[in-house]
Amino acid sequence: MNIEHLFIKALKGEKVERPPVWMMRQAGRYLPEYIELRNKYDFFTRVQTPELACEITIQPVDHIGVDAAILFSDILVIPQAMGLEVQLLEHKGPFLPKTINTQKDIDALIVGEDAVASLDYVSKAIKLIKKELNDRVPLIGFAGAPFTILCYMVEGKGSKTFDKAKQFCFSQPELAHQLLNKITDVTITYLHEQVNAGADVIQVFDSWSGMLAPKDFNQFSLPYLNKISDSLSARVPVILFPKGSWYALEELSKSSAAAIGIDWCITPKLARALTQNNKTLQGNFDPCKLLLSIPQIQQEVKEMIDAFGVDRYIANLGHGILPNIPVENAKAFVDAVKNYKSL
Amino acid sequence: MNIEHLFIKALKGEKVERPPVWMMRQAGRYLPEYIELRNKYDFFTRVQTPELACEITIQPVDHIGVDAAILFSDILVIPQAMGLEVQLLEHKGPFLPKTINTQKDIDALIVGEDAVASLDYVSKAIKLIKKELNDRVPLIGFAGAPFTILCYMVEGKGSKTFDKAKQFCFSQPELAHQLLNKITDVTITYLHEQVNAGADVIQVFDSWSGMLAPKDFNQFSLPYLNKISDSLSARVPVILFPKGSWYALEELSKSSAAAIGIDWCITPKLARALTQNNKTLQGNFDPCKLLLSIPQIQQEVKEMIDAFGVDRYIANLGHGILPNIPVENAKAFVDAVKNYKSL
Repeated sequence: MNIEHLFIKALKGEKVERPPVWMMRQAGRYLPEYIELRNKYDFFTRVQTPELACEITIQPVDHIGVDAAILFSDILVIPQAMGLEVQLLEHKGPFLPKTINTQKDIDALIVGEDAVASLDYVSKAIKLIKKELNDRVPLIGFAGAPFTILCYMVEGKGSKTFDKAKQFCFSQPELAHQLLNKITDVTITYLHEQVNAGADVIQVFDSWSGMLAPKDFNQFSLPYLNKISDSLSARVPVILFPKGSWYALEELSKSSAAAIGIDWCITPKLARALTQNNKTLQGNFDPCKLLLSIPQIQQEVKEMIDAFGVDRYIANLGHGILPNIPVENAKAFVDAVKNYKSL
Repeated sequence: MNIEHLFIKALKGEKVERPPVWMMRQAGRYLPEYIELRNKYDFFTRVQTPELACEITIQPVDHIGVDAAILFSDILVIPQAMGLEVQLLEHKGPFLPKTINTQKDIDALIVGEDAVASLDYVSKAIKLIKKELNDRVPLIGFAGAPFTILCYMVEGKGSKTFDKAKQFCFSQPELAHQLLNKITDVTITYLHEQVNAGADVIQVFDSWSGMLAPKDFNQFSLPYLNKISDSLSARVPVILFPKGSWYALEELSKSSAAAIGIDWCITPKLARALTQNNKTLQGNFDPCKLLLSIPQIQQEVKEMIDAFGVDRYIANLGHGILPNIPVENAKAFVDAVKNYKSL
């Protein structure tokens, strides 16, 4: 990149005039342009066709004006690449007909280059996106965190509590760590391929780590987050987002990651205190609040930035944008950050 | 009560030789004796027939040896009493065909004595249970917290995120507070009826408060929890359990409640620090861990009590017991607490 983008400066901890802003799931169902493509192509066709993934990735840059693009893809491409069938039905969530339960299941997983080779369409999409973006904004690549991927591989579908996956970890920890290591290795290779293709930043989504007690997080999630961050951080800034794991903030502030994502269930003040004010934080607007009136959104955004401070901060939601958010409200959120004046 | 029960002593902050123990949803599907009745009678028949509710309430006292009984009922009897139909289908969760959206919907709700009169079967059940228990252990009465009841009334069913309910609160706060006040008033009257009938302790379940940001919890949950606690605490000890709202512990430690329930996502040490060591805490075993081997359960229980300390502590799970827990494991959990030696 030739220009020093605001998003990169915030990740490096450099002083900025205002925080950068993007939204998790910004390339998604609240955008009419996305719905048009969704009505024509099924989910994995959109993910696996570089031209479609490129078009969808760039939509929120063009229509909403975010400061970063994030690759349109899914965290479940990793189980797919490792040999598990993944069905993604609209309105029903993911379904994996074959789940992981035994040593034999783990042994049968595809690993190494063989797994990552099948994700070649991602590199192609990233190269295309980088060309089309033409350095307007940086591109975020991503993957699911190993614990979250284990959750889906063992549970076979979404769940409120992922009891089956947690029971697998607690009652067969050796198998769980074998599985987590395999997922981690494939994920690291995959993310390096994303960087090779042009991804400027990597985010790791640990969507379900918040269901773990602190000591179990330290055993089944944290080591693998750190392994990924340590491997990638030498090349690009890494953002770790273990949703709900507020209790890990102090430990994560010692990690190699450039930034930590947080949800809305922790105050900016406490998050700053727990990270000793030395990490870039990303978050934490409650996605439901994008249904407020535009003046109310503006007010809430101002309060949020006041509380986090302008530096070492990336404005974002605390989770993905909801499908029923009016486009003008999403835009109002982004504009409110862009127009923020600290004085 | 003639004897000073361990459970009551812990709630009063008196010194005890070991912590008392019970389990949320202890009268539930992991018990073969419960399954027998479930196969004969539908859910609301079990709830509304005093003899059945009595039998189910006492099952875990007889078969597991817990130190407290909790009334077999459901938090959704309050929406029912206020005039909303509630269907409870096995394996599908609750469904309310008519939801609350407008001023007119709120105006149409039944309140006051008219609402509570329809819950007369609860008082009858409590009187029967007290007689059958014959002072072996105290009886806990309960209700859902107003915010959680609002969630179901507005959303109409369970949800991972209760977006619709939260959006109702955020975008129409005046209506939300009207609804919360109506629910609170009915709940207070209902809980006093439970105490009149013989309930020794009251627990208030705020199952979904953990989905609120701290400042929204302070607006939509906390005032109503306090109102209920303030009204009941003069008569019996009150336990508040706002699941997931770890951020509220400091504020809740100033409430009139005798105890605060916590889930497993906070360490005992931090929970003690946030409550200035002056509240009885209840929790916080991860329900999934009841699937560990019995020696492992014993070890985890020991570590938990070591961390909380023996006094001002009630051993419990951090959420309801899962249906697939073997009875011997549930019993091992209870026995491990009973056999705890601090030396």
